[in-house]
Amino acid sequence: MKKFTSVTDIDNVEDWVRKALEIKKNPLVNNKIGANKTIGLLFFNPSLRTRMSTQKAAQNLGMNVMVMNLNTDGWKIELEDGTVMNQGSQEHIKEAAAVISQYCDVIGLRTFPSLKDREKDYADDVLNKFLSNISVPLISLESAILHPLQSFADVITITENKILKRPKVVLTWAPHPKALPQAVANSFLEWMRKTEVEVVIANPLGFNLAAEYTRNCKVYHKQEEAFENADFIYAKNWSSYDDYGAIGKNLDHWMVDEAKMSLTNNAKFMHCLPVRRNVVVSDAVLDSKASLVIEQANNRTYAVQMVLQKMLKNGQ
Amino acid sequence: MKKFTSVTDIDNVEDWVRKALEIKKNPLVNNKIGANKTIGLLFFNPSLRTRMSTQKAAQNLGMNVMVMNLNTDGWKIELEDGTVMNQGSQEHIKEAAAVISQYCDVIGLRTFPSLKDREKDYADDVLNKFLSNISVPLISLESAILHPLQSFADVITITENKILKRPKVVLTWAPHPKALPQAVANSFLEWMRKTEVEVVIANPLGFNLAAEYTRNCKVYHKQEEAFENADFIYAKNWSSYDDYGAIGKNLDHWMVDEAKMSLTNNAKFMHCLPVRRNVVVSDAVLDSKASLVIEQANNRTYAVQMVLQKMLKNGQ
Amino acid sequence: MKKFTSVTDIDNVEDWVRKALEIKKNPLVNNKIGANKTIGLLFFNPSLRTRMSTQKAAQNLGMNVMVMNLNTDGWKIELEDGTVMNQGSQEHIKEAAAVISQYCDVIGLRTFPSLKDREKDYADDVLNKFLSNISVPLISLESAILHPLQSFADVITITENKILKRPKVVLTWAPHPKALPQAVANSFLEWMRKTEVEVVIANPLGFNLAAEYTRNCKVYHKQEEAFENADFIYAKNWSSYDDYGAIGKNLDHWMVDEAKMSLTNNAKFMHCLPVRRNVVVSDAVLDSKASLVIEQANNRTYAVQMVLQKMLKNGQ
Repeated sequence: MKKFTSVTDIDNVEDWVRKALEIKKNPLVNNKIGANKTIGLLFFNPSLRTRMSTQKAAQNLGMNVMVMNLNTDGWKIELEDGTVMNQGSQEHIKEAAAVISQYCDVIGLRTFPSLKDREKDYADDVLNKFLSNISVPLISLESAILHPLQSFADVITITENKILKRPKVVLTWAPHPKALPQAVANSFLEWMRKTEVEVVIANPLGFNLAAEYTRNCKVYHKQEEAFENADFIYAKNWSSYDDYGAIGKNLDHWMVDEAKMSLTNNAKFMHCLPVRRNVVVSDAVLDSKASLVIEQANNRTYAVQMVLQKMLKNGQ
Repeated sequence: MKKFTSVTDIDNVEDWVRKALEIKKNPLVNNKIGANKTIGLLFFNPSLRTRMSTQKAAQNLGMNVMVMNLNTDGWKIELEDGTVMNQGSQEHIKEAAAVISQYCDVIGLRTFPSLKDREKDYADDVLNKFLSNISVPLISLESAILHPLQSFADVITITENKILKRPKVVLTWAPHPKALPQAVANSFLEWMRKTEVEVVIANPLGFNLAAEYTRNCKVYHKQEEAFENADFIYAKNWSSYDDYGAIGKNLDHWMVDEAKMSLTNNAKFMHCLPVRRNVVVSDAVLDSKASLVIEQANNRTYAVQMVLQKMLKNGQ
Repeated sequence: MKKFTSVTDIDNVEDWVRKALEIKKNPLVNNKIGANKTIGLLFFNPSLRTRMSTQKAAQNLGMNVMVMNLNTDGWKIELEDGTVMNQGSQEHIKEAAAVISQYCDVIGLRTFPSLKDREKDYADDVLNKFLSNISVPLISLESAILHPLQSFADVITITENKILKRPKVVLTWAPHPKALPQAVANSFLEWMRKTEVEVVIANPLGFNLAAEYTRNCKVYHKQEEAFENADFIYAKNWSSYDDYGAIGKNLDHWMVDEAKMSLTNNAKFMHCLPVRRNVVVSDAVLDSKASLVIEQANNRTYAVQMVLQKMLKNGQ
């Protein structure tokens, strides 16, 4: 397995979920297969769950871990080709990627979109330039447009908690004071499409996601309609794709609260975290038994451990 | 052992010191008991000795270590309950603590007081909110009001260096240009009370510590009087408890120097470090054979290793 | 081996290169000799290659690694003796060095020059104050005036790639928008003098290096003349030694490009990285087969692993 950057990199979601749940039962059973192997975790952006769960999973496999905050520990990275680098950036991504891959057996990379230039963001430049210049497998720890480890953990969590064979899953937009990426939402839809669920979307007018991720998905602009009969409510803010990077105004009523949850089929509540309490979701919902957010975070370990095992076992 | 946050969490100081000194003689004798266990070190504030000695101790036990600088590596943490999180903070401590404890077998946490709101600081909020939301043992790496690992190392150092069975120990306030916590001083008194010593305090008027930590302790406002016949001088600055967070003005003469040390019974000099030279203590005293500061730092490793061994052996 | 801070700390460059190349063939053969040993990597300045290659090498030997960014993770360090520390700095280098060396079996230290006070920089104060206050071996991860790990990796790379028994090596100054240290250049010359090569220097007027590093070396002020018949072109910017810290103006024509490379004997191109593309060297040269920069970075691992093996095997 050369890369894990999207659901399209794996063969069978159901099979992967089953194996990840086996890992969860006995996470140390393969604790020698990473001996003398090193994963380098490269962060252009903050991270808590991804950073810790990936370290944990790597250590469960006996791997060594090196963490780099690229913007502060190292040098400012230039992404453009052909630039005369006489300004702020100190090292080109070509060299950085090629060099780092010599010190690591697997690379994890986190990067965020600019939310200013849609075309460039959706080309997923940083990720793809790394992929072009490295000689070892790469795991996306969230890219400009996708967050596959989160989605994989989400599918694991839904599988563990579903009652119906084919539950109804609502991905609902929620308010947020800052412009956020569409990565978690895009990625969630990609993975839902390969999972036995009925997935629908609720978002305000002007906040439709890119067509490539929403095709065949019913999109509601009235949140309450979408919630009817739902088994899982997945809340997440994203900034506008159409009016690229714009945040929602006067949309506080899109917060998920108990009244809305009461419209559902006793739905479970999901969010990738970090979550802004009483903005995205009310305390009452988040602190209720319906909330799966802590378990979603727990499953991040087993999701990435599954990916690492594939990379270590299959060679490169 | 579920937590190590104060001397009140341990049964017998003398016994703990004896066992820590055994660890010091042979620190690798238990280097398998931490196998496949992970300690997560969480820093809201800077740290050198604590960071490195805790890593060292964990590695002596064969543990894995994950370090997070919470303010820069992760997300800005909200501490208050019920807040509408539409401002700067990005993740609530409830989620952060619950999530992190899923990735770790032991958590170490460092936090400092605001030195603005005494009531809130002395409620030790950050520490206690972590304790309420985690499922694994926690070690305080210094909280808003106590620094038990430092005090434990201090007791070890006094035990190693005392000549008299019951030495006289002076905790003396010393000058400092910035407002510092009372944690080291509070904690030192807590541990001294459970150690076979005579402890007295010297501090300027207006710099008495909280009564709960000083009860039964003689407090001198003339430093020279306190130093008479002392066997150990423990210097430390703290900002005012009464005029909360105020720093001392025109108190430069409280610096510990050779003239003052000559009033003692050939006392040893102690400080927790970092220390500002020629402000808190003169070069001559710090560079003399009487100074134990480097050994105090060394003993930090064995103090925390003792705590870790208790947590690993007794289960959780 | 107590320290690795300069070529003068090793006995025989040729022998060391030969052994490093053996390590490169089989880097895990000694993966037990570092068991239960800890290297502390201390950074006053950014680092990517040094940080990652040293971690990798230490892990190849089974060592534990602790990384500290001294300016941000810890306390602001005071370097001067006798200072009244009532300003910004919080901990004196005497304590910091003595304390840290108690937690580590080997220390790695990176520090940069001020480029303002030549006398102080060339006294290599930070490095030497660490050396005076530690009790374990120290590896320079680049000091104010030398970068021996880089130079050792450079000699390894030249040895692997040379065709002639005694190749001609050109160290050429190159443009850069910011004032950079002379460390890489000084150090390269020190190591070249102990290697079987003909080394010459090309730099603009006003950019001669310190005489102590250039003695017996021909210095050209016309870059093209130096390039004639060269087998290796080593490009590097440095700020002025004479007009200390001054950067070059109107010297963009010193960039290495294909036209200049065509004057050589099919020379290989070398640079220590990070490199500013189209300022120091053109894309065409850096992306050509003649470029060895990625392999130089790869050899950093084996260079530092050789040093570590010497320190671990010979005891301290």
